[in-house]
Amino acid sequence: MTGNKAVAYKGPGKVELIDIDYPTFELKDGPGVNPANVGRAVNHGVILKTVATNICGSDQHMVRGRTTAPPDLVLGHEITGEVVEVGRDVEFIKVGDLCSVPFNIACGRCRNCKERKTGICLNVNPDRPGSAYGYVDMGGWVGGQANYVLVPYADWNLLKFPDKDRAMEKILDLAMLSDIFPTGFHGAVTAGVGVGSTVYIAGAGPVGLAAATSAHLLGAAVVIVGDLNEDRLARARSFGCETVDLTKGGPAEQIEQILGVPEVDCGVDAVGFEARGHGHGKDAEEAPATVLNSLMDITAAGGALGIPGLYVTGDPGGVDEAAKKGALSLSLGTGWAKSLSFTTGQCPVMKYNRQLMMAILNDKVHIAKNVNAKAITLEEAPQGYAEFDAGAATKYVLNPNGYLS
Amino acid sequence: MTGNKAVAYKGPGKVELIDIDYPTFELKDGPGVNPANVGRAVNHGVILKTVATNICGSDQHMVRGRTTAPPDLVLGHEITGEVVEVGRDVEFIKVGDLCSVPFNIACGRCRNCKERKTGICLNVNPDRPGSAYGYVDMGGWVGGQANYVLVPYADWNLLKFPDKDRAMEKILDLAMLSDIFPTGFHGAVTAGVGVGSTVYIAGAGPVGLAAATSAHLLGAAVVIVGDLNEDRLARARSFGCETVDLTKGGPAEQIEQILGVPEVDCGVDAVGFEARGHGHGKDAEEAPATVLNSLMDITAAGGALGIPGLYVTGDPGGVDEAAKKGALSLSLGTGWAKSLSFTTGQCPVMKYNRQLMMAILNDKVHIAKNVNAKAITLEEAPQGYAEFDAGAATKYVLNPNGYLS
Amino acid sequence: MTGNKAVAYKGPGKVELIDIDYPTFELKDGPGVNPANVGRAVNHGVILKTVATNICGSDQHMVRGRTTAPPDLVLGHEITGEVVEVGRDVEFIKVGDLCSVPFNIACGRCRNCKERKTGICLNVNPDRPGSAYGYVDMGGWVGGQANYVLVPYADWNLLKFPDKDRAMEKILDLAMLSDIFPTGFHGAVTAGVGVGSTVYIAGAGPVGLAAATSAHLLGAAVVIVGDLNEDRLARARSFGCETVDLTKGGPAEQIEQILGVPEVDCGVDAVGFEARGHGHGKDAEEAPATVLNSLMDITAAGGALGIPGLYVTGDPGGVDEAAKKGALSLSLGTGWAKSLSFTTGQCPVMKYNRQLMMAILNDKVHIAKNVNAKAITLEEAPQGYAEFDAGAATKYVLNPNGYLS
Amino acid sequence: MTGNKAVAYKGPGKVELIDIDYPTFELKDGPGVNPANVGRAVNHGVILKTVATNICGSDQHMVRGRTTAPPDLVLGHEITGEVVEVGRDVEFIKVGDLCSVPFNIACGRCRNCKERKTGICLNVNPDRPGSAYGYVDMGGWVGGQANYVLVPYADWNLLKFPDKDRAMEKILDLAMLSDIFPTGFHGAVTAGVGVGSTVYIAGAGPVGLAAATSAHLLGAAVVIVGDLNEDRLARARSFGCETVDLTKGGPAEQIEQILGVPEVDCGVDAVGFEARGHGHGKDAEEAPATVLNSLMDITAAGGALGIPGLYVTGDPGGVDEAAKKGALSLSLGTGWAKSLSFTTGQCPVMKYNRQLMMAILNDKVHIAKNVNAKAITLEEAPQGYAEFDAGAATKYVLNPNGYLS
Repeated sequence: MTGNKAVAYKGPGKVELIDIDYPTFELKDGPGVNPANVGRAVNHGVILKTVATNICGSDQHMVRGRTTAPPDLVLGHEITGEVVEVGRDVEFIKVGDLCSVPFNIACGRCRNCKERKTGICLNVNPDRPGSAYGYVDMGGWVGGQANYVLVPYADWNLLKFPDKDRAMEKILDLAMLSDIFPTGFHGAVTAGVGVGSTVYIAGAGPVGLAAATSAHLLGAAVVIVGDLNEDRLARARSFGCETVDLTKGGPAEQIEQILGVPEVDCGVDAVGFEARGHGHGKDAEEAPATVLNSLMDITAAGGALGIPGLYVTGDPGGVDEAAKKGALSLSLGTGWAKSLSFTTGQCPVMKYNRQLMMAILNDKVHIAKNVNAKAITLEEAPQGYAEFDAGAATKYVLNPNGYLS
Repeated sequence: MTGNKAVAYKGPGKVELIDIDYPTFELKDGPGVNPANVGRAVNHGVILKTVATNICGSDQHMVRGRTTAPPDLVLGHEITGEVVEVGRDVEFIKVGDLCSVPFNIACGRCRNCKERKTGICLNVNPDRPGSAYGYVDMGGWVGGQANYVLVPYADWNLLKFPDKDRAMEKILDLAMLSDIFPTGFHGAVTAGVGVGSTVYIAGAGPVGLAAATSAHLLGAAVVIVGDLNEDRLARARSFGCETVDLTKGGPAEQIEQILGVPEVDCGVDAVGFEARGHGHGKDAEEAPATVLNSLMDITAAGGALGIPGLYVTGDPGGVDEAAKKGALSLSLGTGWAKSLSFTTGQCPVMKYNRQLMMAILNDKVHIAKNVNAKAITLEEAPQGYAEFDAGAATKYVLNPNGYLS
Repeated sequence: MTGNKAVAYKGPGKVELIDIDYPTFELKDGPGVNPANVGRAVNHGVILKTVATNICGSDQHMVRGRTTAPPDLVLGHEITGEVVEVGRDVEFIKVGDLCSVPFNIACGRCRNCKERKTGICLNVNPDRPGSAYGYVDMGGWVGGQANYVLVPYADWNLLKFPDKDRAMEKILDLAMLSDIFPTGFHGAVTAGVGVGSTVYIAGAGPVGLAAATSAHLLGAAVVIVGDLNEDRLARARSFGCETVDLTKGGPAEQIEQILGVPEVDCGVDAVGFEARGHGHGKDAEEAPATVLNSLMDITAAGGALGIPGLYVTGDPGGVDEAAKKGALSLSLGTGWAKSLSFTTGQCPVMKYNRQLMMAILNDKVHIAKNVNAKAITLEEAPQGYAEFDAGAATKYVLNPNGYLS
Repeated sequence: MTGNKAVAYKGPGKVELIDIDYPTFELKDGPGVNPANVGRAVNHGVILKTVATNICGSDQHMVRGRTTAPPDLVLGHEITGEVVEVGRDVEFIKVGDLCSVPFNIACGRCRNCKERKTGICLNVNPDRPGSAYGYVDMGGWVGGQANYVLVPYADWNLLKFPDKDRAMEKILDLAMLSDIFPTGFHGAVTAGVGVGSTVYIAGAGPVGLAAATSAHLLGAAVVIVGDLNEDRLARARSFGCETVDLTKGGPAEQIEQILGVPEVDCGVDAVGFEARGHGHGKDAEEAPATVLNSLMDITAAGGALGIPGLYVTGDPGGVDEAAKKGALSLSLGTGWAKSLSFTTGQCPVMKYNRQLMMAILNDKVHIAKNVNAKAITLEEAPQGYAEFDAGAATKYVLNPNGYLS
């Protein structure tokens, strides 16, 4: 029996390495597994030996204790791996294939999957449409920050890299295909970014930087990224973005200095509900509606807002009663007067990952460099979580099996 | 000199017939005219003798005193008329043409007009993108509830009916092309309504009924309309809609009774900021976020919300401080978890009016019957306003020049 | 062992009932089965007891001897049935489910399926993208004009009707979901048909009538159908279409009489490569480019052509050498000057069948009546083929198991 | 009276500089002017002093004598200039503005203009939808290869550069906005090019190189350009394209060497009806259907073809009777089996020019370098035509007024 070490949530502010069972083709009971999913047969699944498995900003929501995640929940939904076993119903994926795993688990058989809406698959999460590995209230699929992980509906979910050697040369870039690159791309696309657009992206964390990278790839004329964190802004400047330092004031004035007008065509919210007040420095209090209200202010009439940043239905740690219920005080009248449109929700990764892989493999984009991807060992994961939470301008990629040199 | 009688706002709750000047090819000073627009040459305009000019729900916002509209502002942005004079720069529209006027005034020369976004034209309103006839803060273009009205950029703005006699046979239907039919259609289209959709429309006023008519025309499988007003719901039932009586509870349960599930594919907000609480009967207090929160609740994951209902940036009559600033307490987390999208703003009428005219002229749709259009004289306008405000299930069409038999 | 009777091609002009094996979860060798498909495991499949299985115009190409179809090839790709056995890998479809089968077989795992292009699935036909039941050069999947048929990738391919009793009430309508209704709808959609469009459909066979039905459902203002066959034109008139009798001349003049202009917004080719010359009466010779050249002529600048009618890469029975190679003499300059666009190929049924089912179940459309669907026994199939080939204005629906009363 | 020198067609193979009248705000009679346009008032026009006015491949069709162009027709539809006079009806364009002129003349008032289809405007050419400056059978609008030119409907047609000084720094790039850059972009867009696409572009002339530039800007993974002319292929390689040398064989094998498969996602025809046979060297005979048949062959199932290359309704110099009538022998069956779609026609420049200008001004793209733009004097125009016709890998930009240093 092969050992399987995994990164687990142990309580607010705490992640630890634990030993878990090597996966089988069945979803067994465990921390956070929905009772209706216990015992589910997964003959359509494969077992992956993880090659790269990244720490994500949305993991932090759990780690900070802002959710109902139970202790020992295994984290990790950004997974790249090599197939080591295939279930009996798997037809096209083979042992030895090197693959990217979309963070959203999807069945490939329901109405939503057929309509390319894999972020809200109807068959994988008994609670509601949509699921993910290693995430609270998502059905209980075990996370992938581990040596091995089970991937269900493998023929549907996995994106196989066409050439293993060529893929390993760009593996840190390809590791971003499981979540943040498509998520940032979805943010840019749903914000209407196209050739010649001017774009403002709120947030210079990994998703914000991925959205900025995507905006460039989509042909945007000017890409502006705003944040309170100077290190992260420096990242954005390193690949041709303009930046707005929100410790120095709201975005409108700084945008006007860059563009000559205080408005952009497209706005992306890469922050979400844990937003802090703009323009009030690093000690700014949480102000969950700040980003969206600001984006409505600085997006020109006729524009669109892409909202990949997470908003939750309930937040026990919210600043006030409204925030605890997930209610935001939005100046919708401003958006209405400008005929703005808004797109929310999980990115349906499968809609974009193949084309982004093609761009990576053909050297059109350097996402790993742009987000400052850095490989660390599984043992270093707790430190990686802490540094990331402290604002490091780094995307931490766990290397559980030594594939990353 | 031809006389010109017009319906004017005279103060909260009060509209009266007044005498105004016969229009010339210049925008003269007057109540509500933006100083930057005073004296503007309008050689590209035509003078219309009004054939039909409707009372609109958004006029009521002014009449109720919920805006900063000044006394003597001439009302009316839903205009159909016959051309009686053309400006020297008009090339394609001729005297005698019978035309529908989109309520949004547009220049046909700016970036937004070129992109079909005529609801946010950049050149007609000095205050902000977008304009309309007879409306507060929209630049000061004189309203059309009068015998004669000036229409600028006539070659661009006017939709000429191809055959006058044939048009007069369906004139009450065609009169709905200036606003509510395209507005309802835009609501349905932006809610993603297509063949086979299930649709819920909040509000059974004229725009809601137009949205329901549009949903049928777009091939929806089931169209459900919700309101507190039984007469208006009866209207909806008269052309094949299902209805939800909000005096009897929230929409989810009643939708489930109709569809077997408590959710629809598409949601339309045909109410806007003056919404009243669902499920609390006719005396329900204003609850501006009610409709949107309810729509997020009953729209299925992956769905879309079309929001033609007006939301304002400031509302002196708002129920609380937030409402006065146009801020709404929205459960965005619910929408985000479902990957919903939202489209707001004025309908760009020109994007739809030609095709809807074709549907009317070829007997595919009977919008006048569906909204219960009723012609009244200019003198009856004040009474029409009052009845409409009281909830009459009627769309009042003014007949200033006796064209409507 | 249950008996299984099936309709087979026996040579040019000849179809007969034969006995075939009851299906198992394996694709066995047989007439027309691609060697690379022999022995393929189909544990993802189900066995259907056929409820309705229609004769299609594209079957006639084989029956007329215009293809390389081998004798004893079992015909039938328009299948509706009840599940009687499920393969071990099937998870969501259950015994007893009543389902529509898209005629295009698709794996639900390849790039094209993920992009909703199920008409060109990469994994089901060793020769080229795309497959169908009971069709020459399509991989060798056994046809469904039989008592029982194997449907692979059942969780992906099957559209389950939500309520069996309600479905049986409209079963002749629902039987059109396997091919002609979506195919006609695809033709209309790709021709750009929307609310208010004027549409010309070449061909009043079942696909043409389904396209006309679809155009109405999509809100077209005027739907015109052209054919040489008066009985079929009478069908079109029965549900509100205008008609063009091509025995009396080309379509332009007759269109002008109907619309006042000799052009339409949208053109649909529901004829394909076996077209006969327009305007030359019933004895017109084959003229394979006639329909497309005529459509370029009568479609207005800026319009689009939907081309569901089949064009082949080689036609042994072609009128001349060019036709034998599948080459057509097209007046592309005419199309180019008008900026026309063209969409060809098999309809990806799964993109449309759920929404069309919703329209049928909610009484928005009556496709069976419009195409004059008529149930006949399996034994009557040869006669049905002959009558259909002779131009009967009837859609023949085989009733192999007595479900249709 | 200011002098006005212009480049005129003088007969097959012959262009010369002639003196023409300085323009007025009226379309006067002259070579090639449609009688119905003679005397047309153009108060909505402006007079431009030309800054750059390029020689285009489609001018060559006239110059080679392949059209019915009359002698003394003034050439030139790729115009950039400075406004020196404005008509009385012009409101937003001012004297001194530096502007790009879309080659398609459009009224900004008809149905097609309102739908963004400015390439087929209904009001500028009495013969058919669509017009252009200096082109046979396009209404007779005087060409712009001159010192001064009249631009009608100036508020609608002109794209004003926001900052003159900044624009003059990139004026050779901006000069490509009048035609070839948007035309190549339209080819790429209608071929479905997006992030990660593989693209084949037939033809490495200026439009082909502009399409290749556009494909890169749109995020394509691999851009392959095919031609018989090695100098032009070297151009393509200079900005990151792969190339196919058609003197060495058909494109499929060479594409397979580049991509590993003999197919691309997207195909662009940047050649048109004067195509020569692939794979037969420089002496290849004209074979007008070659490019399209080849593109159907090498475009993968589900792909699209963008066809900006010109196809004509009649060609007096065609190789055979079919070609003289504009009929092509197309293997449509191949395209149909692959579900390909096709988009033809003039590029509607206004749909793209603003966004491409933004990309140029913000240094995202270097179109002038990619197409090897070279400024020459008006006097050098005849030599420029000759060199271009001989296959020079150069885009000639006339500099009639010395603006280009």
